[in-house]
Amino acid sequence: MNGSAWLDEVQWNEDGLVPVIAQEQSSGQVLMMAWMNREALLQTVTTGYAVYWSRSRQELWAKGEVSGHRQQLKELRLDCDQDALLMVVDQQGGIACHTGRHHCFFRRLENKEWRCIEPVIREPGEIYGDDRS
Amino acid sequence: MNGSAWLDEVQWNEDGLVPVIAQEQSSGQVLMMAWMNREALLQTVTTGYAVYWSRSRQELWAKGEVSGHRQQLKELRLDCDQDALLMVVDQQGGIACHTGRHHCFFRRLENKEWRCIEPVIREPGEIYGDDRS
Repeated sequence: MNGSAWLDEVQWNEDGLVPVIAQEQSSGQVLMMAWMNREALLQTVTTGYAVYWSRSRQELWAKGEVSGHRQQLKELRLDCDQDALLMVVDQQGGIACHTGRHHCFFRRLENKEWRCIEPVIREPGEIYGDDRS
Repeated sequence: MNGSAWLDEVQWNEDGLVPVIAQEQSSGQVLMMAWMNREALLQTVTTGYAVYWSRSRQELWAKGEVSGHRQQLKELRLDCDQDALLMVVDQQGGIACHTGRHHCFFRRLENKEWRCIEPVIREPGEIYGDDRS
């Protein structure tokens, strides 16, 4: 019995990544979409907290490491094509977005314009030093 | 004033695509994740029904064209990095997945195994002819 067979069942893309949707358990709000590689997914499941792969920095990204806004894993789902993950989480601090908003989908299309409709809960300068997490 | 400036603000990937999350308005359930190119997004907003880009078939995919399980657009959101979309929809027929399930995330990780935990509402053979939509 291979203990990592579940990792092999994920259809990793050509860069070895899979898209991950984080949804808040309490509100049902879709908080963000990010990417994981195999190691990030393994660490997420092992530690119980979301670890993503930062494509811009090309490194593992322990969500909330700097800000404290960690995402505690409550449930993990795989889709029909096995190439997308849905992670139900408890969003610590109530802020998922690096802009200091509750979630990342804060722009709504209205009359062919993207309007920012979600408030900044805490200024990024207060949340972070130089780093973003 | 350019009427398509909102399309230019989306950060299309190297294949000209953007990942799209479809969330059901009534239940908050994340139904599926798929991809759109510029034309698919334009048609979605223009018609008010989800049109994706099928990466496997390399063609526009009017969701529900065969099955009738169309997704009526209720709200469209863009994320902080402008490289992911969240679409709030009314899922007609209550079936989003080509397997005949309510949604595509029907496998849950339990003890290092992906367990199928959602029922088939209608057999795919009943929903489709040869085509899948």
